[in-house]
Amino acid sequence: MSVLNIIKIGGNVIDDANQLSAFLEKFSALPGRKILVHGGGKIATRIASDMGIEAKMVEGRRITDAAMLDVVTMVYAGLTNKNIVAELQKYNCDAVGLCGADANMIKAVKRPVREIDYGFVGDILADSINALAIKKLLEAEFIPVFSAITHNGHGQLLNTNADTIASSLAVALSKLYEVSLIYCFDKNGVLKDVNDDNSVIETIKSSEFETLKEGKVIHDGMIPKLFNAFDAISKGVTNVYIGHANNLHLFQQRKFGTCLIA
Amino acid sequence: MSVLNIIKIGGNVIDDANQLSAFLEKFSALPGRKILVHGGGKIATRIASDMGIEAKMVEGRRITDAAMLDVVTMVYAGLTNKNIVAELQKYNCDAVGLCGADANMIKAVKRPVREIDYGFVGDILADSINALAIKKLLEAEFIPVFSAITHNGHGQLLNTNADTIASSLAVALSKLYEVSLIYCFDKNGVLKDVNDDNSVIETIKSSEFETLKEGKVIHDGMIPKLFNAFDAISKGVTNVYIGHANNLHLFQQRKFGTCLIA
Repeated sequence: MSVLNIIKIGGNVIDDANQLSAFLEKFSALPGRKILVHGGGKIATRIASDMGIEAKMVEGRRITDAAMLDVVTMVYAGLTNKNIVAELQKYNCDAVGLCGADANMIKAVKRPVREIDYGFVGDILADSINALAIKKLLEAEFIPVFSAITHNGHGQLLNTNADTIASSLAVALSKLYEVSLIYCFDKNGVLKDVNDDNSVIETIKSSEFETLKEGKVIHDGMIPKLFNAFDAISKGVTNVYIGHANNLHLFQQRKFGTCLIA
Repeated sequence: MSVLNIIKIGGNVIDDANQLSAFLEKFSALPGRKILVHGGGKIATRIASDMGIEAKMVEGRRITDAAMLDVVTMVYAGLTNKNIVAELQKYNCDAVGLCGADANMIKAVKRPVREIDYGFVGDILADSINALAIKKLLEAEFIPVFSAITHNGHGQLLNTNADTIASSLAVALSKLYEVSLIYCFDKNGVLKDVNDDNSVIETIKSSEFETLKEGKVIHDGMIPKLFNAFDAISKGVTNVYIGHANNLHLFQQRKFGTCLIA
């Protein structure tokens, strides 16, 4: 199978124009088939506030009401996505900006209302990804760039977690490609000592995860990220990398962050 | 050559959710290869105003400064484009929402500053359209849906007239397809009598245009539209239709509006 790299970039990089541009140049330089998934950043919150739309939170969690859905659709799928695409084109990377509604690539279901009504938030199911449509783009040598907006197939757009989009794409496309999933964030990797940026753990095997967790070696905040990464690996993804956005150029030599394997 | 229909829908239909939905259902039902180009509507103006961004006009013409470019990028390429795509997917039309930066499909040059500085407005040149990239999507059986945003190839997005995008696409793609260009607006076609909606002229030949113009048979407002349409025909487009968005279902029987031919 051919290799496919799926790279997720978080909101913190998107909020910093210089860092984003440097990252996009490195992404452009990565050879072979690749997909970019980007989060939202703080721009949506700022624009909502400019428009007098109040950010609604319930028990510390953001609620996407109809007005906020319009804002995130505008910002994630419009402003952020198209500026990223234009910048990638500058670096001769043949990007195509997408949301999940495009070519019905990522379907989701509106999160059922239980204790909390999250509003227009979409959850991705196991069969939600249209891998064949994405393959058509990849084989045409386009570079898909996904914003974190999906749809329900009945005309409704939905706000969806970008990390989940990246891992769902990785799992679905692992049936067709040898997939590496690369999470770029603002740390050098999984750290042995959270106060020491150079204490990156190079490799974590699935079997070591429990031990590291019990020994409190891994910081609490990393546990859900690692849990989801090992889940993706158990479902067919070859490996998952977690590292600093600024170091993406080191990925080719496999010197990038922490590598999680089966 | 295979047939390709390029349909342009104006802002007035986009502003009316029911009319837009009815139009999109009719667009979905059109068989064969097709492209949709959509204008902006009044939503951008409303959102700019909500954000406290003043619409700048010089000699009655809108200026796209940096703040307004962000708004039109958000609204045209995000909110409007992705909602149209989600709605088309509902009708089993395999739409992919695009702006000109995607796959470098439509490049433009920032309009040179002469008497007026229009700001971030893009003009399309004769070689601005990447017909081969668009062909790849069409041959993969996707339905491209273009918003009126282009880029300059150096990372800068540009606001561009949707009528011009439609006719530029039509001319460029007429080298690869037999192209009909279909302008949908809020009149039944080119009218003999502007006060009589049923006075539609069925066909206008290029050679008749001058006579009709001199005889003041054609309303002043229609003249630039017709001039551009005949220009597209002279450059290879098979024919241009101008008619009411509500009547798109009649296009298959060629009972739609006014047909302009060489």
